[in-house]
Amino acid sequence: MSASVAAFYEGGRTIRVAETQVSPLGPEDVRLKVAFCGICGTDLHIYHGHMDQRVKLPQIIGHEMSGVIEAVGDRVTEWRVGEHVTVRPILHCGECSACRAGYTHICTRIRVLGIDAPGAMQGLWNVPAHTLHRLPASLTLQQGALVEPISVACHDVRRGDVKPGDNVMVLGSGPIGLLIAMIAKLAGARVLVSEVNPFRLELAKSFGIDTVNPRESDIVRVVADSTGGAGADVVFEVSGVAGAVESMTKLVRPRGRLVMVAIHPKPVPVDLFQFFLRELSLQGARLYERRDFDQAIEIASSGQLPLDRIVSLVTRLDGLQDGLEKMDSGASIMKILVACS
Amino acid sequence: MSASVAAFYEGGRTIRVAETQVSPLGPEDVRLKVAFCGICGTDLHIYHGHMDQRVKLPQIIGHEMSGVIEAVGDRVTEWRVGEHVTVRPILHCGECSACRAGYTHICTRIRVLGIDAPGAMQGLWNVPAHTLHRLPASLTLQQGALVEPISVACHDVRRGDVKPGDNVMVLGSGPIGLLIAMIAKLAGARVLVSEVNPFRLELAKSFGIDTVNPRESDIVRVVADSTGGAGADVVFEVSGVAGAVESMTKLVRPRGRLVMVAIHPKPVPVDLFQFFLRELSLQGARLYERRDFDQAIEIASSGQLPLDRIVSLVTRLDGLQDGLEKMDSGASIMKILVACS
Repeated sequence: MSASVAAFYEGGRTIRVAETQVSPLGPEDVRLKVAFCGICGTDLHIYHGHMDQRVKLPQIIGHEMSGVIEAVGDRVTEWRVGEHVTVRPILHCGECSACRAGYTHICTRIRVLGIDAPGAMQGLWNVPAHTLHRLPASLTLQQGALVEPISVACHDVRRGDVKPGDNVMVLGSGPIGLLIAMIAKLAGARVLVSEVNPFRLELAKSFGIDTVNPRESDIVRVVADSTGGAGADVVFEVSGVAGAVESMTKLVRPRGRLVMVAIHPKPVPVDLFQFFLRELSLQGARLYERRDFDQAIEIASSGQLPLDRIVSLVTRLDGLQDGLEKMDSGASIMKILVACS
Repeated sequence: MSASVAAFYEGGRTIRVAETQVSPLGPEDVRLKVAFCGICGTDLHIYHGHMDQRVKLPQIIGHEMSGVIEAVGDRVTEWRVGEHVTVRPILHCGECSACRAGYTHICTRIRVLGIDAPGAMQGLWNVPAHTLHRLPASLTLQQGALVEPISVACHDVRRGDVKPGDNVMVLGSGPIGLLIAMIAKLAGARVLVSEVNPFRLELAKSFGIDTVNPRESDIVRVVADSTGGAGADVVFEVSGVAGAVESMTKLVRPRGRLVMVAIHPKPVPVDLFQFFLRELSLQGARLYERRDFDQAIEIASSGQLPLDRIVSLVTRLDGLQDGLEKMDSGASIMKILVACS
């Protein structure tokens, strides 16, 4: 039994980095030497205590990772020591109505690694082999840690049924909003991103994405003007603010599609009359399916995304708490990676 | 120029029945002798003054009708005097983004006959020939006046993508909710209707539809129990009350479909978190397309719907105001027909 170092969320906005015993390897599990783990908005939610009902303290967080296989369980035949991988961090029950319908990513008893089970913010991490995706040699391990959020964006764009030539509006340009904008562009859409944070606006612009600041412009008018009065084909709500929900029904064309990516913990007023009047549709989008990871890896390794420029900072496990505070402060941060070993 | 009798909405909860000059017949128009015209919830909205911004006083209302062709314009070749018809009461612009995309029923400059232009509550009515649908001999003219609301229900069920074996929940059992329940049953679904009005509940039951009163039972539990805990596949919100919007996201299964049929004039709190968490979808549904009328006529003439029992009362034009008051009072009314000639 060897020891490893892990970052534990202990409640009360506290991360403790401490040694932890590495669990024995199950026959269908794989032990990973974690290379990098991104800090997600969900990690920040956990840090704020908003998920204390769900996480079991102390909780090793982290679920956006890359790593190298260190050991494989007795019954694992498809994976070899030394392979570079990322993890689709979902354990599903296989029995609920969602699982039986094939939607294992919205399993009603889902366990997400890093939330409901130990996560990747540690040196060595045991995970079931079925969660692994192989990283091609063309991706660095830093880039590989971005596959998970790219998969989220691929899933969202698929839920929005984005087609070549579509006018797409993305409300909010944090890491997921920015990646949705990029993936939608790759799908052939014309994309406009709305964001209030000047750093995020500039970064999006530097990637060739059209942007608008809703504090400076009337975004409904901007979208109308840029679409000959029709409105956007698809609007992604990624901001989580009530004002965006108020705007979204005004931004889409008749029969337009809205995709709810953001978490709105409490009910928010929605203009249902617009849904009736113009036959709008709204799709919720959560996490990803296997094929989203496959697509994300393909896109990431194609070199079409400026992956290295999305990473604002690389820190170490003992810098995780500081990283969370930086994200919280609205600092000039897009994605922070934590080097875990 | 002959004279006819018409019912005019004059504002201030007043209907006046008076003689009116019959307009000259345009070359592409048809003159109908109106047989029956149903009173719609929209007519009640108009009567309440809620649409005074839109209607032009005095306004001949009515848009759920049947009639007999009395004369045809010079360039009309497909229709003959004496044919029994109903009217799809929509005039579209053909130029807006909705029309260009093929969704003429949500034309952004739509004119609905009986709201934005003279309606069917009159003895003789000129309409463009392109709005006509032929009524088969198997339908009485009373039954033919129900084709329009049946078309609404066909459209809604299509928007909900109801499949054989689906568990369908309908919130609200006025004429449209009741017809949605019936059409969904014909599509092979298991249907449960939620309604508070005892008369409407009993009528639905008498048609073999399962019902629940949300004032007496916890409908979320009832639906969970009847679907093995999964939830409904499709929920139609036809009630227009905020409580139903609060319930609807709890009633559907993961990836379940919500259809917004009701008019909610003001924004209503919606639990968007459930959209995210369980990847729900919401579709707005308004009016109907040509194929919905075709389907409605086919279903109506198949004899599978208890059409005559949906009609609670047949009155005359001078009974329209009294009929509107009866609907308003929550009396034991499903559909009122007005004999117009």
